[in-house]
Amino acid sequence: MKKHNFSAGPSILSKDVFTTSSKSVLELDNIGLSVLEISHRSKEFVKIMEDARSLSLELMDLSQDEYTSLFLQGGASMQFLMVAYNFLSTSASYIDTGAWSTKAIKEAKLFGKVNEVASSKDNNYNYIPKDYIVPSESNYLHITSNNTIFGTQFSEIPNVDCPLFADVSSGIFSRSLDYSKFSLIYAGAQKNLGPAGTTLVVIKRSLLNEICREVPSMLSYKIHNDKDSMFNTPPVFPIYACKLSMEWLKSIGGIKEIEKRNRLKANKLYDEIDNNELFEGFAAVEDRSIMNVTFNLTDQSKKDIFDEIVLKKNISGINGHRSVGGYRASIYNALSLDSVETLVDAMKQFEKNI
Amino acid sequence: MKKHNFSAGPSILSKDVFTTSSKSVLELDNIGLSVLEISHRSKEFVKIMEDARSLSLELMDLSQDEYTSLFLQGGASMQFLMVAYNFLSTSASYIDTGAWSTKAIKEAKLFGKVNEVASSKDNNYNYIPKDYIVPSESNYLHITSNNTIFGTQFSEIPNVDCPLFADVSSGIFSRSLDYSKFSLIYAGAQKNLGPAGTTLVVIKRSLLNEICREVPSMLSYKIHNDKDSMFNTPPVFPIYACKLSMEWLKSIGGIKEIEKRNRLKANKLYDEIDNNELFEGFAAVEDRSIMNVTFNLTDQSKKDIFDEIVLKKNISGINGHRSVGGYRASIYNALSLDSVETLVDAMKQFEKNI
Repeated sequence: MKKHNFSAGPSILSKDVFTTSSKSVLELDNIGLSVLEISHRSKEFVKIMEDARSLSLELMDLSQDEYTSLFLQGGASMQFLMVAYNFLSTSASYIDTGAWSTKAIKEAKLFGKVNEVASSKDNNYNYIPKDYIVPSESNYLHITSNNTIFGTQFSEIPNVDCPLFADVSSGIFSRSLDYSKFSLIYAGAQKNLGPAGTTLVVIKRSLLNEICREVPSMLSYKIHNDKDSMFNTPPVFPIYACKLSMEWLKSIGGIKEIEKRNRLKANKLYDEIDNNELFEGFAAVEDRSIMNVTFNLTDQSKKDIFDEIVLKKNISGINGHRSVGGYRASIYNALSLDSVETLVDAMKQFEKNI
Repeated sequence: MKKHNFSAGPSILSKDVFTTSSKSVLELDNIGLSVLEISHRSKEFVKIMEDARSLSLELMDLSQDEYTSLFLQGGASMQFLMVAYNFLSTSASYIDTGAWSTKAIKEAKLFGKVNEVASSKDNNYNYIPKDYIVPSESNYLHITSNNTIFGTQFSEIPNVDCPLFADVSSGIFSRSLDYSKFSLIYAGAQKNLGPAGTTLVVIKRSLLNEICREVPSMLSYKIHNDKDSMFNTPPVFPIYACKLSMEWLKSIGGIKEIEKRNRLKANKLYDEIDNNELFEGFAAVEDRSIMNVTFNLTDQSKKDIFDEIVLKKNISGINGHRSVGGYRASIYNALSLDSVETLVDAMKQFEKNI
């Protein structure tokens, strides 16, 4: 029996991705070869890569003239150092909204001066800072658009004079944004995009001429782009599965449609958290994420009772991160309303039983 | 109908890998979740990672006390810069045996002095240099143990006073070697190890204390090892498939048994190249690779005739690399004797038809 998978990542993908990629591991499109054994220079994979790159831009309504899309390796953590290695020449500004921002800042400091222009550390990152000044001479401003661990998100994109960079790992494709405000965004695949093992980087083409130092080939955005995201053997299967996942998203109506569904799911769950006396939300209401919903018990001593109900309902992956405690329900694009309703039922049943 | 897949990489894997991983994409071991959606912190994946790491050492007869094994991202190309970033403090020695060595040298030069102690460039890399002196004060000597493009391999491991590093991407697990002579080896998975998307690094534990400069977290062997190869989300599916592939290799008798099979396949093919007047081998006989067999037509004008026979026999992936021309048959561990015999039949038929 299929579990209701609320894992923060790697996480649930659409059923289409599972069924089609399972078949393709046996044989891809009747070509007599598994997707795992095709050359990355084969016409089949070259098309998969091209489709994945163009779909990612299409979904975000970005033009291929202005932006390019790369599927790299190493996760967001590799991007933490790559953005700084390529673009931090004098000083860059960062907003610290939690563990992942902190890690991005740590890696950037190896390459130049970091201005931490705002932080919500004072309240264990349960909110998004609103008042800050970004020096216009910053090489860039870096934000983490959605904070997986703390369950917060930027509801609005900052308006700044310098280039805007964002780690959008846990929020990509979840809601309509004016993506053209960003000069560079990146996302580890393993949330809304696909399985673990590749990282989407979308970058303004004009920025590729502004790489500020000699960068090793594998860390250079310019080299990856010059080689059409195939400087070396790319992670074939993860990219293939990402392509399937983006095709699914497009087929159901793209970001506009998925945002409706995501907001419906998030509202259902937050309503229950707010109305059920046994729970309290962690994140400031105005900064709540529609992807990662963090909440705690009002009475810790009743944890075992709730956990047993959760287990019986075949719900998986809702334990909170150790730095927040309590629970975290990740309700990514591919998670069904039915799974959210099952969790809400568990919460209601818990309240009734107590 | 399944093709005979001679691709240089990504390449054929054992049937077990295709069937088991296809099933696991639908559901892993009856846990109600796909292998694509499990958390990398789940007990299931923690065990997969541990098994993959220990199997890799076991197959090479290396002790876990002395060596550690990591599954990283970025392919051999990322290792080109990582080895130098971590260990090139003053000067390192490299043997240039082809395109991949050349790339490794290029990246290393960003971090310190490179002594190119020998090169076979003078004869388009068709042999392995034998006479060279490695300065004992070298931080390390780097070799490419098997040269995918040119079809050469080191038949013997160099004896040196400094630490020995090797890119073993296209030769790993293909033959018995005294792997304890190496301080560090790495291999992109997409040949004998698994599908594209992960890179095995095996490193002497004592070396982890000798990292020579401040290294960004994602490029530090020490950090990856301290975090049990899970500093950040690893490429779950590629590592899972590598584990299956290593289990298959162990089940048939390990490297000792596969070497027998590989030598039988290689001998069959080289015998035909040597005895068939329409072909000639590219690599020097004493340096021939048992993984990548490079050969040319003695009469280029007959190419179309041979290519048609190859196509009819459902043989795939034998076009040579542009820098060598002709043909390259990659006969990795998972390629059957039957596939090699089919290719030999094609060569015989070609000779008969002419």
